[in-house]
Amino acid sequence: MIHASEPTALTRPGAIVPDISLASRLFDELRRRTGGPGGITRTSYGLGEQIAHDMVRREALRLGMRAETDAACNLYLTLEGETGGPAIMIGSHLDSVPSGGNFDGAAGVLAGLAVAAGFVAAGRRPPVDLTVMAVRAEESTWFGASYIGSRAAFGTLTSDELDGVLRAGDRISLGAAIDAAGGDTARIRTGQPYLDPARIGLFLEPHIEQGPVLVAEGLPIGLVTGIRGSFRHRHAACHGTYAHSGATPKSVRQDAVLATSRLVVEMDAAWQALQDAGRDLAVTFGQSATVPGEAAFSKVAGRTDFALDVRSEDSETLDVMRAELRRIAGRIEQQEGVRFEFGPETGSTPAKMNPAVIAEMAVLTERLDVPARAISCGAGHDAAVFARQGVPTAMVFIRNRNGSHNPDEAMEIADFAKAAEVIAALCETWGSADTAAAA
Amino acid sequence: MIHASEPTALTRPGAIVPDISLASRLFDELRRRTGGPGGITRTSYGLGEQIAHDMVRREALRLGMRAETDAACNLYLTLEGETGGPAIMIGSHLDSVPSGGNFDGAAGVLAGLAVAAGFVAAGRRPPVDLTVMAVRAEESTWFGASYIGSRAAFGTLTSDELDGVLRAGDRISLGAAIDAAGGDTARIRTGQPYLDPARIGLFLEPHIEQGPVLVAEGLPIGLVTGIRGSFRHRHAACHGTYAHSGATPKSVRQDAVLATSRLVVEMDAAWQALQDAGRDLAVTFGQSATVPGEAAFSKVAGRTDFALDVRSEDSETLDVMRAELRRIAGRIEQQEGVRFEFGPETGSTPAKMNPAVIAEMAVLTERLDVPARAISCGAGHDAAVFARQGVPTAMVFIRNRNGSHNPDEAMEIADFAKAAEVIAALCETWGSADTAAAA
Repeated sequence: MIHASEPTALTRPGAIVPDISLASRLFDELRRRTGGPGGITRTSYGLGEQIAHDMVRREALRLGMRAETDAACNLYLTLEGETGGPAIMIGSHLDSVPSGGNFDGAAGVLAGLAVAAGFVAAGRRPPVDLTVMAVRAEESTWFGASYIGSRAAFGTLTSDELDGVLRAGDRISLGAAIDAAGGDTARIRTGQPYLDPARIGLFLEPHIEQGPVLVAEGLPIGLVTGIRGSFRHRHAACHGTYAHSGATPKSVRQDAVLATSRLVVEMDAAWQALQDAGRDLAVTFGQSATVPGEAAFSKVAGRTDFALDVRSEDSETLDVMRAELRRIAGRIEQQEGVRFEFGPETGSTPAKMNPAVIAEMAVLTERLDVPARAISCGAGHDAAVFARQGVPTAMVFIRNRNGSHNPDEAMEIADFAKAAEVIAALCETWGSADTAAAA
Repeated sequence: MIHASEPTALTRPGAIVPDISLASRLFDELRRRTGGPGGITRTSYGLGEQIAHDMVRREALRLGMRAETDAACNLYLTLEGETGGPAIMIGSHLDSVPSGGNFDGAAGVLAGLAVAAGFVAAGRRPPVDLTVMAVRAEESTWFGASYIGSRAAFGTLTSDELDGVLRAGDRISLGAAIDAAGGDTARIRTGQPYLDPARIGLFLEPHIEQGPVLVAEGLPIGLVTGIRGSFRHRHAACHGTYAHSGATPKSVRQDAVLATSRLVVEMDAAWQALQDAGRDLAVTFGQSATVPGEAAFSKVAGRTDFALDVRSEDSETLDVMRAELRRIAGRIEQQEGVRFEFGPETGSTPAKMNPAVIAEMAVLTERLDVPARAISCGAGHDAAVFARQGVPTAMVFIRNRNGSHNPDEAMEIADFAKAAEVIAALCETWGSADTAAAA
């Protein structure tokens, strides 16, 4: 389908130049067609997501790419490669949270499309098949389930989820929503995978950064080292004893606020120490509260309820912090005469990004003079599903102001272009001596 | 009225023996007549308080004491002294909180009556007039105003209070309640004092301990060194910035929970340091909470609301802690990028108990082999009003389990007897060489 011809526009002789104007046009169209005064809404398996899928399919077909969908309506847009080796996949999701931003998810798909368009414009094939994947239903705010599209692609979405989880708002079941979008839940229920991890040489997910690091450091892109796993205690409590604030001496107090404060401060110190030792970690007490109706300004607090969220790229670091939590809490229990009750632990397993791919991208950023840094990814992404399937996986973060999941997401197209340039170079040289170690 | 006769019962030759069986009988009668299954209720200027006043008046008259009331219905029961020097007053209040205990307040009045009965039984007069005072309306839960009876006695209860404060429950104004009890609010409004501080040589308030110190240390009584004053920030807040718990690095967080926790821990350290240096102090963060609906387990907290209560016997120590609070908070604001807003400061002035009286009572406890310790009083009491009027003032705490303001108050009559014994000895020797320094 793709025939060799002369390159039309190049910054370096022979280099693939991603089609940023295509991406820019599609970002504008997405904003126009799926946005409103309150922000962007592209409901999972709903109208906005479908508009986005139809748009990128239309553009891919114009570029001469092959379009396929699986039983969960994930969309695969493939530019045929020079050889039949394991494919390069570039992708992300096209749904958004309600009243969200235009870039979370879409940037990854459009980056893939811009790179594919670069190959087409250069009249060249990628070394292997280049598949741009538009993943369905990544934003768990809609169905309260994680990674619906990518798990379905690997055959791990369950019948229980298809029948049991309902979409926020219209309360339509996930299975009904997939079938309404043109999917095939009967096939999903068989658990038969659509994707074969062995046939994927690389899954690359470009994504806007959801934190403030790249803005703070003045860097257009970040090379993600891993997607953090976590352990969480959403319903922890500290039990002390209510007592008169004026009549109860320090030595006999069992002060839940003081004990919880010590825990917060000492867990923070443990975080600092591990971070100083080069470990990836984030420790957050996002909620902490005395009990309304029981606590009073003139009473030593007898109880606090709090939530703890510990994240790391590294399972061992999570284990270290889990042990630290017990040790610190145990000591505070002794000192303060309180009792901690952490409640059930939930969490997720970290997903390491492929070190060889990261190393190769680091070389490319230097060669292309694109300032970049290694960065940890704290939020969940479909890339984690691919990594856990054993697919060599990488993520590129693109600088973005104001966080994500809100209408104020602000990615600049110049930064997007730099990310696409690095990705194009990676694709172009994929499988050569430079990247042999990566696959 | 009082004639010398032979002592009837003495543990030491010549010693005044308080009439504990009288007090014990009155405690029982109080419990029977003002208690119910839910606890004791002696409403300020209500039925229960009136029953209690009538009971002690009846007993005092039986003992040959003189009974008087002032315009606020405070009751003064006087045993005439050998000389006309400034009187000894022993007293406390007879009201209780709703569903409270039998001892808070009443123990002080009955201790005074037991000592007076001891003089009567011994056929002796006290060195100066001994006046047992039953103060009205001390429990601010009823009218939301502090020290109503004792302030009225000194002419400092205001017309605004008489008209403006309403009793919890029946919404009767304080003035109407006083008049209904037989008082004279027209006279109270003149601001003319009933009591002359210069005519009071000692105000002594025996009271159950409301904290756990004496129980913990196995001591029947405590000699109060001062009634703590306070400064309070009931509506303080810490303003940080909400952020993604997984995507926001430590260095850029503005974490309100961490900042508030640091404040709690560092204020506690400042307390410990001042306490180690011999200062009286209590620092309590009784309430602290992230904002429901804003905070989430997966978000760095952008705000906490908290309350701070700092108490000390010593105004200078309060000033030191006020400065510490600003210094510590200022440093944390710098470190954590947050902003503290402490809101309005309320509070009260400390009232020192008379050191010479405390010293004399310490000598007496040793002589009588009554184990005792110096102790700080964290709650407000009428004694503070007398101290601020310049009256030499003291308080004796009596060991009590389970705190106060609840039906489980548990003072043992043996401990009450030890307190009464010390007080009797103090009265007996009042004005002698031993106690000359006290007045």
